[in-house]
Amino acid sequence: MSKNKNHQAQSDRYEIRLSGSGGQGLILAGVMLAEAMGVEDGKNVVQTQSYGPEARGGASRADVVVSSDTIYYPKPMGLDLLLALTQEACDTYFSALRENGILIIDSDLVHQPPTPDCYSFPFTMLAKNEIGHVMVANVISLGAIVEITRLASKDSIKTVVKSRAPVGTEEKNLKALELGFKIAKEKMKSTRTAAV
Amino acid sequence: MSKNKNHQAQSDRYEIRLSGSGGQGLILAGVMLAEAMGVEDGKNVVQTQSYGPEARGGASRADVVVSSDTIYYPKPMGLDLLLALTQEACDTYFSALRENGILIIDSDLVHQPPTPDCYSFPFTMLAKNEIGHVMVANVISLGAIVEITRLASKDSIKTVVKSRAPVGTEEKNLKALELGFKIAKEKMKSTRTAAV
Repeated sequence: MSKNKNHQAQSDRYEIRLSGSGGQGLILAGVMLAEAMGVEDGKNVVQTQSYGPEARGGASRADVVVSSDTIYYPKPMGLDLLLALTQEACDTYFSALRENGILIIDSDLVHQPPTPDCYSFPFTMLAKNEIGHVMVANVISLGAIVEITRLASKDSIKTVVKSRAPVGTEEKNLKALELGFKIAKEKMKSTRTAAV
Repeated sequence: MSKNKNHQAQSDRYEIRLSGSGGQGLILAGVMLAEAMGVEDGKNVVQTQSYGPEARGGASRADVVVSSDTIYYPKPMGLDLLLALTQEACDTYFSALRENGILIIDSDLVHQPPTPDCYSFPFTMLAKNEIGHVMVANVISLGAIVEITRLASKDSIKTVVKSRAPVGTEEKNLKALELGFKIAKEKMKSTRTAAV
């Protein structure tokens, strides 16, 4: 009985890394995702930024670990999902992705994906052309992550994006989030159709 | 030799918790402090938010662990510094402060400090009355922390506060930071004088 319970707790843990370069808003995105799951949805969440020598090179990453049980070890052990918004981040962290883990990349910024088995979206181009603000690529990515994984409820992520968006940019960020939902939904639909 | 080196690495580790309630900007302050030490000053830093049942009660905390060596265990084991901006946060986390650790409180919001041996500043009142924006209490606190501990260089924290402040609030935030430096400097001076 107790063994089963432990097994349940272990399999429930989910590890996410949002990676790219400084200025892409990945830490804010990590905080938003963590708050949606932790504060709004009531799960246990640990959100972490680590700064070492690579931070001085301009790289940036935010980790989020979520579980319905207490999280004793907050460092990711094998990523379930990796978002890579630069080629460098993709090259650096792909090996940390576990087998069958989900890779999501910016199709314009990651020219050489390490596997064809990934979700590829032009987040930065969409932010610029569809929303009119390159800085919301992070929130479009968040929308795609939530649509694909359903880790947070849509209401929760909307609430958090609205409250954490810089004053005056709430509407643009909510529009970006909805765009993220939409592109991911379409991609999953077309993937399923192609597989038929 | 190796033993000495380990001892050196251990004693160099410094653990900080910024605590209060949601909306006081503690996560942003934690990110700013971590970036100043990690990206600007070149130390190893891990910055963490944990969300559990207490987050649903409106409590908020941001942890920062800094070391010149690799940080294998990112959770604080015994806090070297605790900032408490609410009575509840002070009551909850004071026991996590190690002996001789530094306690910094908001004098208007923590009415019953658990020890007289603490730094007490009216951060929120100063933010409102001196800067004209209650939201910068977090950055005044940061200024006091940096002045008291010298964990980050002043140039580094200025650079990060300027880049991470919401657009249009850069000047207010820099003013808040300088005010934090000033009040802490005066307090340390008066404490030294009183001790003579």
